[in-house]
Amino acid sequence: MIRTGILGAAGYTGGELIRLLLNHPEVEIVFANSESNAGNKIYEVHEGLLGDTELEFTSEMPFDQVDVVFFCFGHGKSEAFLKEHEIPANVKIIDLAQDFRIGPLHLPQGGKPQGEGYVYGLPEAYKEMIVKAHHLANPGCFATCIQLGLLPLAKAGLLTHDIAVNAITGSTGAGQKPGATTHFSWRNNNFSIYKLFTHQHLHEICQTLNELRPGTTPRVVDTLDEGFEQEGITVDFIPYRGDFARGIFCTEVITLDQPKSAEEIANLYKAYYQDAAFTHYSDKALDLKQVVNTNKALVHTEVFGRKVVVTSMIDNLLKGAVGQAVQNMNLMFNIDEKAGLNLKASAF
Amino acid sequence: MIRTGILGAAGYTGGELIRLLLNHPEVEIVFANSESNAGNKIYEVHEGLLGDTELEFTSEMPFDQVDVVFFCFGHGKSEAFLKEHEIPANVKIIDLAQDFRIGPLHLPQGGKPQGEGYVYGLPEAYKEMIVKAHHLANPGCFATCIQLGLLPLAKAGLLTHDIAVNAITGSTGAGQKPGATTHFSWRNNNFSIYKLFTHQHLHEICQTLNELRPGTTPRVVDTLDEGFEQEGITVDFIPYRGDFARGIFCTEVITLDQPKSAEEIANLYKAYYQDAAFTHYSDKALDLKQVVNTNKALVHTEVFGRKVVVTSMIDNLLKGAVGQAVQNMNLMFNIDEKAGLNLKASAF
Amino acid sequence: MIRTGILGAAGYTGGELIRLLLNHPEVEIVFANSESNAGNKIYEVHEGLLGDTELEFTSEMPFDQVDVVFFCFGHGKSEAFLKEHEIPANVKIIDLAQDFRIGPLHLPQGGKPQGEGYVYGLPEAYKEMIVKAHHLANPGCFATCIQLGLLPLAKAGLLTHDIAVNAITGSTGAGQKPGATTHFSWRNNNFSIYKLFTHQHLHEICQTLNELRPGTTPRVVDTLDEGFEQEGITVDFIPYRGDFARGIFCTEVITLDQPKSAEEIANLYKAYYQDAAFTHYSDKALDLKQVVNTNKALVHTEVFGRKVVVTSMIDNLLKGAVGQAVQNMNLMFNIDEKAGLNLKASAF
Amino acid sequence: MIRTGILGAAGYTGGELIRLLLNHPEVEIVFANSESNAGNKIYEVHEGLLGDTELEFTSEMPFDQVDVVFFCFGHGKSEAFLKEHEIPANVKIIDLAQDFRIGPLHLPQGGKPQGEGYVYGLPEAYKEMIVKAHHLANPGCFATCIQLGLLPLAKAGLLTHDIAVNAITGSTGAGQKPGATTHFSWRNNNFSIYKLFTHQHLHEICQTLNELRPGTTPRVVDTLDEGFEQEGITVDFIPYRGDFARGIFCTEVITLDQPKSAEEIANLYKAYYQDAAFTHYSDKALDLKQVVNTNKALVHTEVFGRKVVVTSMIDNLLKGAVGQAVQNMNLMFNIDEKAGLNLKASAF
Repeated sequence: MIRTGILGAAGYTGGELIRLLLNHPEVEIVFANSESNAGNKIYEVHEGLLGDTELEFTSEMPFDQVDVVFFCFGHGKSEAFLKEHEIPANVKIIDLAQDFRIGPLHLPQGGKPQGEGYVYGLPEAYKEMIVKAHHLANPGCFATCIQLGLLPLAKAGLLTHDIAVNAITGSTGAGQKPGATTHFSWRNNNFSIYKLFTHQHLHEICQTLNELRPGTTPRVVDTLDEGFEQEGITVDFIPYRGDFARGIFCTEVITLDQPKSAEEIANLYKAYYQDAAFTHYSDKALDLKQVVNTNKALVHTEVFGRKVVVTSMIDNLLKGAVGQAVQNMNLMFNIDEKAGLNLKASAF
Repeated sequence: MIRTGILGAAGYTGGELIRLLLNHPEVEIVFANSESNAGNKIYEVHEGLLGDTELEFTSEMPFDQVDVVFFCFGHGKSEAFLKEHEIPANVKIIDLAQDFRIGPLHLPQGGKPQGEGYVYGLPEAYKEMIVKAHHLANPGCFATCIQLGLLPLAKAGLLTHDIAVNAITGSTGAGQKPGATTHFSWRNNNFSIYKLFTHQHLHEICQTLNELRPGTTPRVVDTLDEGFEQEGITVDFIPYRGDFARGIFCTEVITLDQPKSAEEIANLYKAYYQDAAFTHYSDKALDLKQVVNTNKALVHTEVFGRKVVVTSMIDNLLKGAVGQAVQNMNLMFNIDEKAGLNLKASAF
Repeated sequence: MIRTGILGAAGYTGGELIRLLLNHPEVEIVFANSESNAGNKIYEVHEGLLGDTELEFTSEMPFDQVDVVFFCFGHGKSEAFLKEHEIPANVKIIDLAQDFRIGPLHLPQGGKPQGEGYVYGLPEAYKEMIVKAHHLANPGCFATCIQLGLLPLAKAGLLTHDIAVNAITGSTGAGQKPGATTHFSWRNNNFSIYKLFTHQHLHEICQTLNELRPGTTPRVVDTLDEGFEQEGITVDFIPYRGDFARGIFCTEVITLDQPKSAEEIANLYKAYYQDAAFTHYSDKALDLKQVVNTNKALVHTEVFGRKVVVTSMIDNLLKGAVGQAVQNMNLMFNIDEKAGLNLKASAF
Repeated sequence: MIRTGILGAAGYTGGELIRLLLNHPEVEIVFANSESNAGNKIYEVHEGLLGDTELEFTSEMPFDQVDVVFFCFGHGKSEAFLKEHEIPANVKIIDLAQDFRIGPLHLPQGGKPQGEGYVYGLPEAYKEMIVKAHHLANPGCFATCIQLGLLPLAKAGLLTHDIAVNAITGSTGAGQKPGATTHFSWRNNNFSIYKLFTHQHLHEICQTLNELRPGTTPRVVDTLDEGFEQEGITVDFIPYRGDFARGIFCTEVITLDQPKSAEEIANLYKAYYQDAAFTHYSDKALDLKQVVNTNKALVHTEVFGRKVVVTSMIDNLLKGAVGQAVQNMNLMFNIDEKAGLNLKASAF
């Protein structure tokens, strides 16, 4: 049994992680830390756990009793936490925030990653490194979905023009704290845009695309920081707020130098993902609920002359967050990559 | 033209009132007061008004320039406001909060209400008094919907057993402030109960039912304040949070002393509402969107032996709040009761 | 491994059953029959199964290769099917339609049910018989939710007055065939009533209530079939169409002869369900998403003098249909009652 | 009073047209034709009209008693109807289908359009012709929204590269007939794509863009009909099915030859739409519910180097269909362009 500890256990990702780990056949939850909820039953905070567990939140963090600890903090707090607390050297860390996603350890290096570095936890790109990882930075939800739509083309060297990305996210992507744009009266039956062309996930997306194909430099469009005539292609990302709770539905439009057939493109994707545990190519057009409440990603492609239109989609809380974190844990502990992740789709 | 001032103009009801009054053919908005938004365009706060008006929120309250002022405060603030501010005697007041809904002036008296008193603004019950009113307490949303379902039976003396009321409200009933139960991630596709059997609107409902038929005393079930063996019948009200934004859908189940035919009951309702401007009897089963975005109420009845099942429904922000307030204003100024209220149903 | 066959595998319940059985650790799906889809991949019809199985629909029904067959037909077709087909005597049958829910075998009898009879599959009431059952009639969704709200009071002999039941169902309760009341444009943000006081599930509800406490005869109100003055108490059931896809949220208001304390009532429920695998008492008010996508039922009670207000809720496709069918299968084959049913709540 | 007749009055657009015309101060509905509903009250078919009108559907079509007739047929039936029926020469025709949207009369010509020809009814582009029109082809919903996002750039000659268009529509865009993709159980909380790059509205969009700036030829990408190396730029349109009932939310990404400032672009839009009755430029980011249940269109622009991102949005049934038809009628009869169209936004 893998002995696990959870920090930030009272938040959205903390709750979903507990829902997964309670049914994981090879995991024991040793502690679920939440200062403000210490002593309360977990089912009093997290929906759907009444009757499943009598576990309580704790204020303790007995790191000596665990094999791995999950950081379910808000962004920026993981790094701060590590400055104030010492985690024993033998305890693995899986960080769900964005604190350690950017950095040199993402490059394939052959050898075992050093203790300090964080491996970027996208199995479809870095599985060999993840298996050896001691510290892991779990990817962002948009970043996961968009990269899964682009990886096969990136590896094939076909990303040579600006990429048009449109991605719609459910409200759980905005976290637990209530606010104007998550108020039901406003968001119900509504649609809007935020962080247009400047979403922070662009950095980790471009990092991966650069590593897979260094020839051209995909970059974030940013009129504030960069001159316009800079070299490289841009990832033009429009993030939308959808009026559903779970899921990300994404289109990526890529312009090729030369037209390719629909079959050539589809075959690139099928080959790239043939061994992927949770990412599958679909021959038919997709709809979001096919992946909701699962750890799966589905991708589909259509070709119009030089234009390739990719659709990719995930559940933002699972493959876009804690599902992928558990998948990474499974890889890091050399157990079945799908253990605890054979989830029934909600479908409706 | 009726010159109007609005206090609390930045809230939900304030916004909906402005949307109505801008298109009202006999109304001029003199001021829309909001301290925190003073100087901002109204369309910057209230959805759907861009292009319709360049009006700004003000911190001023020039009561000498208006004929009527609407109080769109939260509950309890109207009374507090009046203690600190003087409204000229010639200015009519329409209060949308619950501060003045309970009191002796609701009783039919023949004469003109005194300056101090507040008439309860339910036109289907108190139209004669409203026409003469100088101060008006606008009914609550649940209270309006439930009373419209019960008035014909109350007047006919048929409310002689406990009444089972179930009413589902949209999220706008919970106001503008974001919180756990209005968070989209929680409320979307969810359903729950609040203030079971103890909703504050029960007081105004029972007040009206008592006045229409003093013989028996409908009362609020309240195990804290009252002994169980108290005389009278109870209104057993279960309020539900629905996962839509606008509307209240209500059933009232009444047990008769003797069975009546469906036709007899239907005829009671048709007769009672034959002259009502906005409340109509439907021969067919109802669905909520028939009234959404209108000032209408629809009622329908079915009979099973001694049991009468009434369905009543309104838009909580319109007939349940500002639509009814404008209807009352029209009556108080002796203009067409429907002026400014011929609203297109959203229907979908 | 339990070898299973599925008839009517292309419908809503068929799809959800396949989603469950694919992850069931002790089940093998031998065939999933659908004439009109024979030869098609199951994932082409049922959402969320791409990547999980390459299984195809078949036109064959090799009953000699299975231990149990699930009937996922529409109502009335199970009985018709059995007249035209012979199922080997050693094959168990679990029927999800209403064809065999009413009948004498539901009465506790001590001995093993005969081969012909169908045991009513509500484990919270008939577990001993289910364990021995060869043929099983799986309860209706509303019927399950309402009975779970009433069983402890029925057993305690406290159902002595008419029972007011309000239950809101998701759209999946209406099945797969598109129609006016399942059209998104109509149903979205809408609310309505159907089969008022006459829902067919009342028969199976009353059957159980009668069996648990034969003294008084709960009955369906039916002005067509029965005279009004008939003896017995009535279950006054208002079914609502909610604007969500999954789940049933139900309130049952019971009037006692004598007031009881909230604690007395809660203890009745806790005692009754203390050994139930999936039905739990909650001390706090409920919200529907706590059970969505799980096989759990949650119940909660509040007391106001002589009135008890029960809230009960389930996922209509799981505990209200195929989840309960799998639970029954587990019992019938003497394996862990929860096998294959430790489902992650969708929660959002 | 303008005397109007409505053909196809029982459909979605027919119903919404009746809802508008009943409150239009200068319109009388002479007949609302529907063979299958002849003799039924209109409120029995169309939501929200109970209490507003006692009008009935008719099987008659007394063209000699009307000044204008609205065709609310499905696509293709208008042309067929005209072959079988004679409309008197003095009766104006407003066709809401796509039958007459493509053709030479859309070109500005100076003189009055001939009786036979149909003017394309987009007031923001063809107001002068609409005022003189006798026959009018009302634009498509997507076509209206997308053109309103592009017109100022087209007129300024700035559409010189392929245009990336993403537009999400509500379910009412799919019409009244129930089907798999409008089933609530499927569409609720779902998201999907249809008619990728090949939507039929592209033809009318490109027609207008060509007429406003003939230098370059925007065209539909169509790998079936055309070789890839054809001249001209393409409008790459991804239409999405959203999980709401009303509204279209659209982004258009335009690549300029040279970078322009955000202010330059905004000023182009403000100048172009300064006299538009219903189309307004917003300085702030948009959300869909600002226009739902109104005849307004809102547009907003952001600039990132050479990339311009336009957001445009409308209510698909109003500005995208019957609201625009009434606006065109107002223009054709030389009355106030906004008559009958000062609609309260639903806002929530």
